[in-house]
Amino acid sequence: MQVSDIVVDTGQAQYPIRFVAGAAAAAAAVDRAAPRGRLIVISDSHVAPRYLQPLLDGLHALGRNARGLTFAAGEASKTIETVTRLWSEVFADAVDRNDTIVALGGGVAGDMAGFVAATTMRGIRFVQVPTTMLAMSDAAIGGKTGINVPAGKNLVGAFHQPAAVICWTDTLESLDRRELASGMAEVIKSAIIAGPSEVQRFREAATAAMERDHGALRVCAEIGARLKASLVSEDVLERGVRSYLNLGHTFGHAIEHASGYGAWTHGEAVAAGMVIAARYSVSRGHAQAPFVDEVRELCQLVGLPIEPPPMSLDEWLGPIFRDKKRVGESVKLILATGPGGVFGQPTSFEELRDWMARELATS
Amino acid sequence: MQVSDIVVDTGQAQYPIRFVAGAAAAAAAVDRAAPRGRLIVISDSHVAPRYLQPLLDGLHALGRNARGLTFAAGEASKTIETVTRLWSEVFADAVDRNDTIVALGGGVAGDMAGFVAATTMRGIRFVQVPTTMLAMSDAAIGGKTGINVPAGKNLVGAFHQPAAVICWTDTLESLDRRELASGMAEVIKSAIIAGPSEVQRFREAATAAMERDHGALRVCAEIGARLKASLVSEDVLERGVRSYLNLGHTFGHAIEHASGYGAWTHGEAVAAGMVIAARYSVSRGHAQAPFVDEVRELCQLVGLPIEPPPMSLDEWLGPIFRDKKRVGESVKLILATGPGGVFGQPTSFEELRDWMARELATS
Repeated sequence: MQVSDIVVDTGQAQYPIRFVAGAAAAAAAVDRAAPRGRLIVISDSHVAPRYLQPLLDGLHALGRNARGLTFAAGEASKTIETVTRLWSEVFADAVDRNDTIVALGGGVAGDMAGFVAATTMRGIRFVQVPTTMLAMSDAAIGGKTGINVPAGKNLVGAFHQPAAVICWTDTLESLDRRELASGMAEVIKSAIIAGPSEVQRFREAATAAMERDHGALRVCAEIGARLKASLVSEDVLERGVRSYLNLGHTFGHAIEHASGYGAWTHGEAVAAGMVIAARYSVSRGHAQAPFVDEVRELCQLVGLPIEPPPMSLDEWLGPIFRDKKRVGESVKLILATGPGGVFGQPTSFEELRDWMARELATS
Repeated sequence: MQVSDIVVDTGQAQYPIRFVAGAAAAAAAVDRAAPRGRLIVISDSHVAPRYLQPLLDGLHALGRNARGLTFAAGEASKTIETVTRLWSEVFADAVDRNDTIVALGGGVAGDMAGFVAATTMRGIRFVQVPTTMLAMSDAAIGGKTGINVPAGKNLVGAFHQPAAVICWTDTLESLDRRELASGMAEVIKSAIIAGPSEVQRFREAATAAMERDHGALRVCAEIGARLKASLVSEDVLERGVRSYLNLGHTFGHAIEHASGYGAWTHGEAVAAGMVIAARYSVSRGHAQAPFVDEVRELCQLVGLPIEPPPMSLDEWLGPIFRDKKRVGESVKLILATGPGGVFGQPTSFEELRDWMARELATS
């Protein structure tokens, strides 16, 4: 465990983001974050076979009462049906207000276990143990929990801050290349928001991280976690600077939607979306042309795509003007003057449509 | 609308409790509490036929976009199935973060609409328009929302404070006698917690209130609302003085449970439970014997029961030692030295069992 933890401070709550190596250290960090009551570890069918039992063994070795619950891996599980089953398994053993729910896994496990914790007896203690680059550098931090409903992704959820985020970094070594690269898209985004020195740290660590060097993986996860912690601390309920985290996401969501979710991973779509956001920034005179090349180069370092798939104007516009960030007839785009110069810009429907028709649409 | 609103102050949020007469005034108060976006009014099949359309008409007359959703009246509706249907109806018309959910009805409508508001897009604005004495004097205030699951009542829920509680007092005139009396149990409880002057105000208003005198009904609702607002403001997350509101409830829950929920209303069970709490307080030397007579007399003023049904020792003990307020092998009972002298007292299982066996159990 490092000496200086990254700390999230929401005003009402403070919690650390810790980086640990090994199941025993992960268990000790969970024990410290949730020192009383029983522990219910919720994990998915990909992560559980490798990491659930070692974590439970570590907790039992510390004398803790801990049990595990699992669900089928994948976004398709993030439903009220899965949550209803988890509630009944949580309540099957007379849970009380001293007990803690632990999420062990990627973004889906964190979102769903977090929602279960937020809604069990009006909110019980919750600890995040992220096992993917995406979750360590972004999703596990900030208290957003949620599930999907037929009307859309993450439309049902709650804010519920964890008591700690425990990044068990050796789990990253077993990610496949595409999943790791996808998580790196959020790290690149974080580095661009943070500024040139974090971009430089990423540039130096990226290649070794993709070769599963433990120290380099941790550097990348820390770039994301530190930036996310600082924005969340400034803006708990996502009214201002926290929206910078949507850099690349508005265009990225259109790509994910057009490709039917799954053909492109979220991170791949965000990577191509960041390149588009850089291009749009240049076209409006906010940034210089080399910024686009820089974003492309960062993505290419970890093998992320830099061009969107062929998409019609309707495919580009549809999800953008349906999404929950729209305000009337404009959308707030996240743009940049360059690394360290990210800002939000309300953009009219007409202006964006004309540019997309000229620069992006293939039909 | 009165000049001096009662205000709830949770530290993070401040909101008023207003008393209004007439649908137009209720609509104006909702409009003021939720000045932007669309309004979705959730009501039940008992309340909607009489009050939903007048409220919507009032909102439309003010130029507001408002629509109504309904569910079957009764505690049996307070399930995840009903919530899932309400989510889909809420999302059917592209809700956004400026929109507001309004609960129109009693405790069930408030709990369920509040849970929908708490979980829609991680929490949207919420306004309570209570239409029962129970809801105005207690349930609508304090931000507790929740639903029932097979493992127990209110086990799933969230804290979500309303932007305002608008007590539309003329709706009380149409409550049937038993429902009104049941709500009065919480008013009596509030008066006892608050002290002798509130007990005296209740005594003077009770008979006229039961005859549906509008001014007297409002006096009773205000006794409950003022006390609840003050305790909630001191203790938002229910760790301390807010537990005083459980006066009579530990014994009351055992009565409700033994009678199968429904044979006794919640308020009837609380009334008999308060008499038992007074008797137990006297038996431990905390209060003098006339306190028991005073509690009995207050309940009888509105026709509430003062004796529990015949129940075995197991029936008395079971729910008390399963309930979520238990701490190890003791239970925190809410006792009193008299009006204004309510306090919490950890009580051992053995002590309570022996007293119940001697004083309460019929077999």
